[in-house]
Amino acid sequence: MIKICKTISSVRNQVMEWKRQGLTVGLVPTMGFLHEGHQSLIIRAAAENDRVVVSDFVNPTQFAPNEDFASYPRDLKHDATLCEAAGAHLIFHPEVEEMYDQDRTTAVHMTQLNNELCGKSRPIHFDGVCTVVSKLFNIVQPHRGYFGEKDAQQLMIIRRMVRDLNFPIEVVGCPIIREEDGLAKSSRNTYLSAEERVAARVLHRALTYGEELVRNGERRVPVITNSIRTILEEEPLASIDYVELVDANSLQKMDCITGAALCAIAVIIGKTRLIDNFFIAPEELQ
Amino acid sequence: MIKICKTISSVRNQVMEWKRQGLTVGLVPTMGFLHEGHQSLIIRAAAENDRVVVSDFVNPTQFAPNEDFASYPRDLKHDATLCEAAGAHLIFHPEVEEMYDQDRTTAVHMTQLNNELCGKSRPIHFDGVCTVVSKLFNIVQPHRGYFGEKDAQQLMIIRRMVRDLNFPIEVVGCPIIREEDGLAKSSRNTYLSAEERVAARVLHRALTYGEELVRNGERRVPVITNSIRTILEEEPLASIDYVELVDANSLQKMDCITGAALCAIAVIIGKTRLIDNFFIAPEELQ
Repeated sequence: MIKICKTISSVRNQVMEWKRQGLTVGLVPTMGFLHEGHQSLIIRAAAENDRVVVSDFVNPTQFAPNEDFASYPRDLKHDATLCEAAGAHLIFHPEVEEMYDQDRTTAVHMTQLNNELCGKSRPIHFDGVCTVVSKLFNIVQPHRGYFGEKDAQQLMIIRRMVRDLNFPIEVVGCPIIREEDGLAKSSRNTYLSAEERVAARVLHRALTYGEELVRNGERRVPVITNSIRTILEEEPLASIDYVELVDANSLQKMDCITGAALCAIAVIIGKTRLIDNFFIAPEELQ
Repeated sequence: MIKICKTISSVRNQVMEWKRQGLTVGLVPTMGFLHEGHQSLIIRAAAENDRVVVSDFVNPTQFAPNEDFASYPRDLKHDATLCEAAGAHLIFHPEVEEMYDQDRTTAVHMTQLNNELCGKSRPIHFDGVCTVVSKLFNIVQPHRGYFGEKDAQQLMIIRRMVRDLNFPIEVVGCPIIREEDGLAKSSRNTYLSAEERVAARVLHRALTYGEELVRNGERRVPVITNSIRTILEEEPLASIDYVELVDANSLQKMDCITGAALCAIAVIIGKTRLIDNFFIAPEELQ
């Protein structure tokens, strides 16, 4: 059975022992309730490192009081089975009290990038993410950290944080893993009723249409985002949080696609907020 | 001659090589223009570690626009001689451009502790300190970091940051080093005219009086701070920024000394802002 560490000192001791043996270490930070998306990160990490640590921690500081921290799904037993099968060597599964002192006063704060996209409806979210990922980096001290491209803004912000604070860690982004009907895998998909689950297909359908427009030469951002918006609005169970097509480095709005871009959407289906996106590489624009 | 590294990659490579050899590394972060205070940190670091890195970097992000970043004294040649004599092995002396990207968006932010004492007149100061020290910790990855107790609030904040973000680094605080007449050693003492230099003795004189009151059993904070204030006010060239006696863990005000406490002052002599302090340990209160 895979080793599960609940304390910072126990995971540190294990990683130190591995490093003494000259082994490389990959970290896959997760909030648990693992699915094939996480699995793909673990498999990639296991291919690129001698040892893989999966952190499994629902981080309270990235949830606002009105959000789903308490109800966020948890299933450590299932997670352990998935981690082991995917090639992980250790799960770090701390209690909240192990991670956060009551009188903590330090936060890693991201300016600019955190005000866009998801940051608008989740203003404290990315500072919570940056702070907990900094802590995990310092606890595990991995050679590489693995993050999914589904959380595109998170991935960008982590890359920026690693660069700005000089973490000696390589950030590896991994492609979105989807259900057969195109819905991006997410632990929150479990919140959806059968009817909502069908409705949720609209995210991928709308983005695919937008991507097709770009592939066919469309460069005008409002044309693309309005087309996506129109498809989303046809779905009665869907309510749009945002549809944005932005510069992939600055997350700033633009009128016309001229370089690397990110098209990202957030849509509420029933009570469940889902996100999805596609990247546009400069090569694709030629 | 001591090795001077100007790039992040060169200092990292050297430290990695040392670590491969199983050597321990101490870091002494400084802004250069080194004096006997820094020297004492280096000597301590050299006694406790196999290798010592001194960072010598006037960090722009901890100065407000109206402060003395441009005029802060610099003398790398003198610093190199002092470092070598004190037992350091490497000086990290980067340009501002090596440390900070133009489009940086990440800061390490300290709440609460940064609003007290020096934080009141220097509101951006401690976030700048936390950010640059995080960077230096990630660049050098030392086993231990050495900081002077003269900057008492800074030392407290660094300890808190290391705890809150789980840096795998031991923070070592070192006693204040003083001139023969009691003035705490500081690179900024060089700003003082001959007349101001004499006037600057008043800081230590006032603190010594306050400390004596505590030693003689006085526990009422206003009595102690008012006595200190009165002595400072007798010096015509001195203008008080603050005189505070606070809880040494929270930096919060108190009426009566009941546990570990910090008495800290900031005084402007001419145009030069000087700080000094004394600690009161719980043992001393019995």
